[in-house]
Amino acid sequence: MPGIGAKTAQRLAFHLINQPPESVKRLADAMTTAREKVRYCEECFTLTDKEKCPICSNENRDHGLIMVVETPRDLAAYEKTGKYDGVYHVLHGALSPMLGIGTADIKLKELITRLAGDVREVILATNSSLEGETTAMYISKLIKPMGIKCSRIASGVPVGGDLENIDEMTLLRAYEGRVEL
Amino acid sequence: MPGIGAKTAQRLAFHLINQPPESVKRLADAMTTAREKVRYCEECFTLTDKEKCPICSNENRDHGLIMVVETPRDLAAYEKTGKYDGVYHVLHGALSPMLGIGTADIKLKELITRLAGDVREVILATNSSLEGETTAMYISKLIKPMGIKCSRIASGVPVGGDLENIDEMTLLRAYEGRVEL
Repeated sequence: MPGIGAKTAQRLAFHLINQPPESVKRLADAMTTAREKVRYCEECFTLTDKEKCPICSNENRDHGLIMVVETPRDLAAYEKTGKYDGVYHVLHGALSPMLGIGTADIKLKELITRLAGDVREVILATNSSLEGETTAMYISKLIKPMGIKCSRIASGVPVGGDLENIDEMTLLRAYEGRVEL
Repeated sequence: MPGIGAKTAQRLAFHLINQPPESVKRLADAMTTAREKVRYCEECFTLTDKEKCPICSNENRDHGLIMVVETPRDLAAYEKTGKYDGVYHVLHGALSPMLGIGTADIKLKELITRLAGDVREVILATNSSLEGETTAMYISKLIKPMGIKCSRIASGVPVGGDLENIDEMTLLRAYEGRVEL
């Protein structure tokens, strides 16, 4: 398991042996149930234990606004802001010719299928890495001819950051993407 | 001196004592000369050893484009990008009611004086901290009535950043500042 080496594993094993049998059983059952029940949401492909995730089945959210992210963890990060009221689409990866990850390996076809519905805007919120940028560019070229508004989250100086500690590429992006006040 | 405690100071002192006298003399002279000769550029107020810094006296740079930064270190950070060809204005601080730093404590009057010349655009590149944002807002309110274009460097996801590791405020800014592709 990630982050657990031989010593930590031994410590955890000894801890479990010292616990009451019922509580170990409860943990084991929870793990089995989680693995069996968790699946992809049939709309946005995030992890959920129902057919549709709570976000996709929430009628108060704006289903005409789709934010495209790479992983369910990115979705969780945006949900924590508490200000985004659209829905998501989880790609489960990003295009990477280097690693041999092509358009068929991410949930791209599924995104295009969703756009047949009443979608107003697609926000590309893939990571700001080479792969994330490539994926965003690729998707925008697919979507724009469909007449759907397509935007990219802003790239620039993070909140609270001191300019002197920020890398040159980010400073350059912040300069190029400057907004008139 | 910052970052130098008792132990490091002692180590440095012993090192100097072991060096040839001429080389210690050269270091001491360099320190004295630097302290005596380094002053503020009369135009942009960055540190220099001439009346005007090499940037302000360079005729190939665009003197109609002024980037406002807090410190000479921020200027150096932007210079490293190698793509900005305008000039700068160093405020030497940012407005902070908490610390009692007001408009008279930073080089603000000097900036306004410079705007009487042929200035096309002022780019506010103060830090993305509370003080930096306040300063940017304050300056933009002074400049806009003068009919000069006033812009703010982009706030958003830094280059190479994974969304899941980015704070919520930055994610929110990146969402709000999204650009149409």
